[in-house]
Amino acid sequence: MKIETVQGGICAVKGVRAYGLKEGNKGLTLIEGNGIAVGAFTLNRIKAAPILFTEQQLENSGGILSAIIANSGCANSFTGDEGMKNAEKMAELVSGSLGVRKEEVAVASTGHIGKQLDMALIERQLGVVAKGLTAEEAGSTAAAKAIMTTDTFLKECAIRINPHEAAKTESGPKQQTDATVVIGGIAKGSGMIFPQMNTATMLCFIYTDANLDAEALSSSLKDAVDNSFNMVVVDGDMSTNDLVLLVSTGKGGEISEPEFKTGLNVVCTELAKQMARDGEGATKLIELRVKGAASVDDAREIARAILRSPLVKSAIFGERLDLTCGRIIAAVGSCTTADVVDPHVISISFKSNNETVFLAVDRGVFTDLSGPAKDILNGKELFIEVDMGVGEVETTAWGCDLTYDYVKINVA
Amino acid sequence: MKIETVQGGICAVKGVRAYGLKEGNKGLTLIEGNGIAVGAFTLNRIKAAPILFTEQQLENSGGILSAIIANSGCANSFTGDEGMKNAEKMAELVSGSLGVRKEEVAVASTGHIGKQLDMALIERQLGVVAKGLTAEEAGSTAAAKAIMTTDTFLKECAIRINPHEAAKTESGPKQQTDATVVIGGIAKGSGMIFPQMNTATMLCFIYTDANLDAEALSSSLKDAVDNSFNMVVVDGDMSTNDLVLLVSTGKGGEISEPEFKTGLNVVCTELAKQMARDGEGATKLIELRVKGAASVDDAREIARAILRSPLVKSAIFGERLDLTCGRIIAAVGSCTTADVVDPHVISISFKSNNETVFLAVDRGVFTDLSGPAKDILNGKELFIEVDMGVGEVETTAWGCDLTYDYVKINVA
Repeated sequence: MKIETVQGGICAVKGVRAYGLKEGNKGLTLIEGNGIAVGAFTLNRIKAAPILFTEQQLENSGGILSAIIANSGCANSFTGDEGMKNAEKMAELVSGSLGVRKEEVAVASTGHIGKQLDMALIERQLGVVAKGLTAEEAGSTAAAKAIMTTDTFLKECAIRINPHEAAKTESGPKQQTDATVVIGGIAKGSGMIFPQMNTATMLCFIYTDANLDAEALSSSLKDAVDNSFNMVVVDGDMSTNDLVLLVSTGKGGEISEPEFKTGLNVVCTELAKQMARDGEGATKLIELRVKGAASVDDAREIARAILRSPLVKSAIFGERLDLTCGRIIAAVGSCTTADVVDPHVISISFKSNNETVFLAVDRGVFTDLSGPAKDILNGKELFIEVDMGVGEVETTAWGCDLTYDYVKINVA
Repeated sequence: MKIETVQGGICAVKGVRAYGLKEGNKGLTLIEGNGIAVGAFTLNRIKAAPILFTEQQLENSGGILSAIIANSGCANSFTGDEGMKNAEKMAELVSGSLGVRKEEVAVASTGHIGKQLDMALIERQLGVVAKGLTAEEAGSTAAAKAIMTTDTFLKECAIRINPHEAAKTESGPKQQTDATVVIGGIAKGSGMIFPQMNTATMLCFIYTDANLDAEALSSSLKDAVDNSFNMVVVDGDMSTNDLVLLVSTGKGGEISEPEFKTGLNVVCTELAKQMARDGEGATKLIELRVKGAASVDDAREIARAILRSPLVKSAIFGERLDLTCGRIIAAVGSCTTADVVDPHVISISFKSNNETVFLAVDRGVFTDLSGPAKDILNGKELFIEVDMGVGEVETTAWGCDLTYDYVKINVA
């Protein structure tokens, strides 16, 4: 199996058209593309109207979607019955505009909580966006842009999987057979990010032509979300509006479920990393690997505790290696439900941009943190490995530093 | 029963002598006072040497303490065997200096993690401090000052309880009989504060002359800690060094356990509020009452989630009422283990310094947040009440806002 990155985001998938419009902080995104759909929804106990509505839609349509409409600037959350009516109205408008069944339209929103939607604006913007729908790359880009809120760059990704070509084949003339499978996604999210399926005001729409049934798609999505979006920590807050949708047209080549899972993991991980890199006010992307853990649950809990800690995050912003290590230790210990935590065997190492590796804590003992170690935190991308030393399980998570700009962005 | 605030901190209790010395960021506190002792220790899975050592000491001495030594500037945490030896050495030095049993000396530390203690410095400082021991008020003050780290003010509190005088008695000539009971405490803590018994690099030493047995003292301390320190949230980080010690000389008047509990709650709550007010970089003290909850666990989980949220905290710093309410809602919903969360019956109100009360969310509906509401967040002390509307249980918690200075303090 060979995986290559391709251009075009969701429009890399044949049969998908998209467009978006952003006016001030109010944006509207429309995606057209028919197929089997599965979703992952926020676990917040207070779910926004579009979340409740879209869950219903997937039930009512028998798991089929023909279009997705998403607005930015208003979360349509904590908006009571009027909020539910407005979510439904959005689906009706799309149904009328595109001639698709109302039940096959998913609705998503992101923005401030507690305000009603400006339906006149949405109707007007939809008129423009529906006319702009295109299968060109620019359609995916416009769609990704229109759902941005505090995001500083748009997030998209697409890959082509050739199940029949070995990864290491010498590249001769490009093989472009019908046997390939494409997965493309767009996403938004930079604040209110915490991994408890799913993180927080993160929206992600993924299309594929993989010919798989709903069960395989659903299992693949759960797996990918657990390994990607659920392992991104920006601030530990959980949104009322999180939504990941995966729609498959089924028109691509044959692919096994494990192969598709691998590909979907690649797309979701790339989008998750883009979110972490765009964490509100962030100056550094942190990739954290927790290895040597006793169980998957332990590894994940420990990784999240470290990346959630404001003290660890601000020490990394300050490029203070000694404080960073000490606070990682405290964060590890704060995992009171972890099965096995033995301070005597924990090791912590850092790898910077230029591949220098530095072992800062060696099986329970701090090494000399002066000298070359001082520069290890200077890069814009940081790789931290915490070896718990008690088992064989490892996990990877992504986060960012805590800066003055995080506060600045969130007071406004 | 009548409770009045008195001066003197721990030295308000007869038989207690204290002193402290702070040189740069390295401080040493010594307290002498013999009696039955009970403690509450950090739940962090990685416990600092002084925590492990002091837990042992209480066992070895049969629950009696004669002295407490505490240093600031080095946490003696993640320091292996050498750390344990140094903690023991501190107890030995105090034993030699004061002529008390080594087993009856408690040791506490606060400061950076991963560094060994400078034992020569501690020995020298102890020489000075032991000579300075005094039963005067100044002794308590010096002791409270010497354990400060990022604290901006010292924290102490003392009360006198007269179990036989009605609270509303007209104050005639002051009653100063032997029948009164005194409780005095000092504490430190402003960062790494999170309530999971106990919060984080918080130290608190409480003395009393209440004539109660270890069981009654222990039960009273657990109750008071749950209602006070465990309900303070600054940043959600948990320290490896938290320690609360309660020592009773038993020489005061008779008091029932419920009466003592009430008094101990007053002292612990006052010290907890002082910590929240001194939260790193804080400009506002937040008192949060969660009422109408279905259970104590629900109420506490919800209160902590709200006060832990960086988004809620930065919105309050920015004095943005709309954002504050929306993010409180999201934080409430993030309590996925809470039994009952019904968005349709939640109300949120605010009370400012000048006692103006403003109902911002009325049983699931945002009220008009413009107009007079705009000024409600301007005060330095803020009272927020979240009524879950589903039960009869209430709890109170304390926190602070998230500011640029929090980041500034923690990068250095």
